[in-house]
Amino acid sequence: MITVALDAMGSDLGPGPLVKGAAELTREDRDLAVLLVGDEPTLSKHLAEQRYDPAKLAVVHAESVVNMDMKPAEALDAAPNCSVLVAARLVRDGEAGALVSSGNTGAVILAAARTFERLPGIRRTAMAAVYPTERTHGPRKDPFALMLDVGATLNCTAEDLVGFAVMGTAYSRIISDIGRPRVALLSNGTEPNKGTPAIVEAHKILMELDSVEFAGNVEGLDIPRGTVDVVVCEGFLGNVVLKMLEGVSEVVADLAKDAYARKFLWRMGLTMLSKGLREIRTMTDWKQYGGAPVLGFDHVVIKAHGRSNHRAIRNALIVAAKAVEKDLSGEIRRALPTPPDAS
Amino acid sequence: MITVALDAMGSDLGPGPLVKGAAELTREDRDLAVLLVGDEPTLSKHLAEQRYDPAKLAVVHAESVVNMDMKPAEALDAAPNCSVLVAARLVRDGEAGALVSSGNTGAVILAAARTFERLPGIRRTAMAAVYPTERTHGPRKDPFALMLDVGATLNCTAEDLVGFAVMGTAYSRIISDIGRPRVALLSNGTEPNKGTPAIVEAHKILMELDSVEFAGNVEGLDIPRGTVDVVVCEGFLGNVVLKMLEGVSEVVADLAKDAYARKFLWRMGLTMLSKGLREIRTMTDWKQYGGAPVLGFDHVVIKAHGRSNHRAIRNALIVAAKAVEKDLSGEIRRALPTPPDAS
Repeated sequence: MITVALDAMGSDLGPGPLVKGAAELTREDRDLAVLLVGDEPTLSKHLAEQRYDPAKLAVVHAESVVNMDMKPAEALDAAPNCSVLVAARLVRDGEAGALVSSGNTGAVILAAARTFERLPGIRRTAMAAVYPTERTHGPRKDPFALMLDVGATLNCTAEDLVGFAVMGTAYSRIISDIGRPRVALLSNGTEPNKGTPAIVEAHKILMELDSVEFAGNVEGLDIPRGTVDVVVCEGFLGNVVLKMLEGVSEVVADLAKDAYARKFLWRMGLTMLSKGLREIRTMTDWKQYGGAPVLGFDHVVIKAHGRSNHRAIRNALIVAAKAVEKDLSGEIRRALPTPPDAS
Repeated sequence: MITVALDAMGSDLGPGPLVKGAAELTREDRDLAVLLVGDEPTLSKHLAEQRYDPAKLAVVHAESVVNMDMKPAEALDAAPNCSVLVAARLVRDGEAGALVSSGNTGAVILAAARTFERLPGIRRTAMAAVYPTERTHGPRKDPFALMLDVGATLNCTAEDLVGFAVMGTAYSRIISDIGRPRVALLSNGTEPNKGTPAIVEAHKILMELDSVEFAGNVEGLDIPRGTVDVVVCEGFLGNVVLKMLEGVSEVVADLAKDAYARKFLWRMGLTMLSKGLREIRTMTDWKQYGGAPVLGFDHVVIKAHGRSNHRAIRNALIVAAKAVEKDLSGEIRRALPTPPDAS
């Protein structure tokens, strides 16, 4: 049985969807238990409205919560027993195998940094995100690719980017079942000499690294096309790119909103067009699928979107358990290049 | 009469669309003349197929051409009389007021750098590009905003970013007739302390600069929404963002390709949906509208897309003439902050 600690407070939609997602999951035929961490009276009240398997679910009290608008460092300093820190300590102490939170992103990363160890050879952690692509990926033909870092580390050295490539490879192997995921550096041209000095240097290192299936540089054009399985970039760029994809989805979604028109298309047999519009809608919902892993710690951390519904929470818990079961941290450790100062 | 020097060689589609665009323009009621620069026999042959006003059009011979796949510095060194350098010298020597080229981007920027002077206070030049947005801008309700730099200067100092803000303001005032265009820095958060050190410092300078209507930082989400009229960022980021928008347009355009379905929608009276699909198609054609100015020189330079059709060339020539007529360079010069070392 794998146990996941779920920080059940601090999400944009309140604890309701988190409790519901966890409760429903316990009724599925899975070796997966959940510790709901947060204000005990509140969580018990929400739980009373759900059917669940009590053998697979328990509430762990935490006396306070970090809200979305708080500054992470100040909030954690002021509340050492807030739900995200209590949940992280449950993982550190072996009570749970992974941490899932849909709260304040900065606070989740900082709580992990203060509670867990970084993997040897990883100087900076990365947050990875899946995003929709035209091409499909892996044996399940997922219409998604992985991008990292999307905001944990603003400026990166060549070694940081190499670490991200290794971590993205491991995560993609484990979660998407892609044997040798193709990994590329995001740059302003495909030639090896294109990009910032850190990108040019990372390109050289990755060319020699057997544990990564390195496809060279890709350009902005390749992001929506989905040319590779894993796109590596520094956190500042990844943040802008990811938010831009959200913005594009919002704008395009306006087109697909007219339910009458879509129904009419079906009736008229214009299924292709109607399907296309539905696909755009699905793409605009991509934030709801699972969560974003924070990679580089010795424990699994998944940050679910702040507006996750109960289905997204369920998916994030399943992804977290899969990462534990398949030993994500060990996979990353084995694929890292030997650091120069250790040779 | 304003004269524009058009580098008529080196485009992806050959000189045909360039000659046609220039020829048709001379038959319009405009005070605009064109010098077609390139291989005289080739251009004359193309001209023979067009109707044009010979009082407004002349061919200037250039003995060689820089192709798209050449390295700019090597190509210009090897061919001092290539069409883009000959065209630039016509501008420097007062024979023409502006340079337009749809050839090798790096060669156009380098030819300008070797032939023109940079404006006082401008350390690095910037290439600006219009891109489609949800919101409209200015008195003509243009569904476009301006972004710079999109690739001329990879890494920027705070002063470079401030210069880009000033140049973007001037260009937007002159070309889009926006009195006080709203300008923002692209960052990973709206707070003044978000972003790289150069962005944080540029934010402080722009807050104090009266000649720029500074709206603070915007995020990736704001790019497709079109929250501001001018988005300022370093060239590496702008390059990735712009190419990603092209990629998104391509992917979305697949939906709108089914002409039968669109026609059917019209017949069925589903005009709203049909119009939406048409708008997506128009957005995917945005590269065809005018060209990208290279800003920071003492002369007007417009880089048209390498796949420009004759209509796009015509538009680029008109934009170039408008920039000369309204004194773009003077507008930029007057709006620049006094450099610290000159005070």
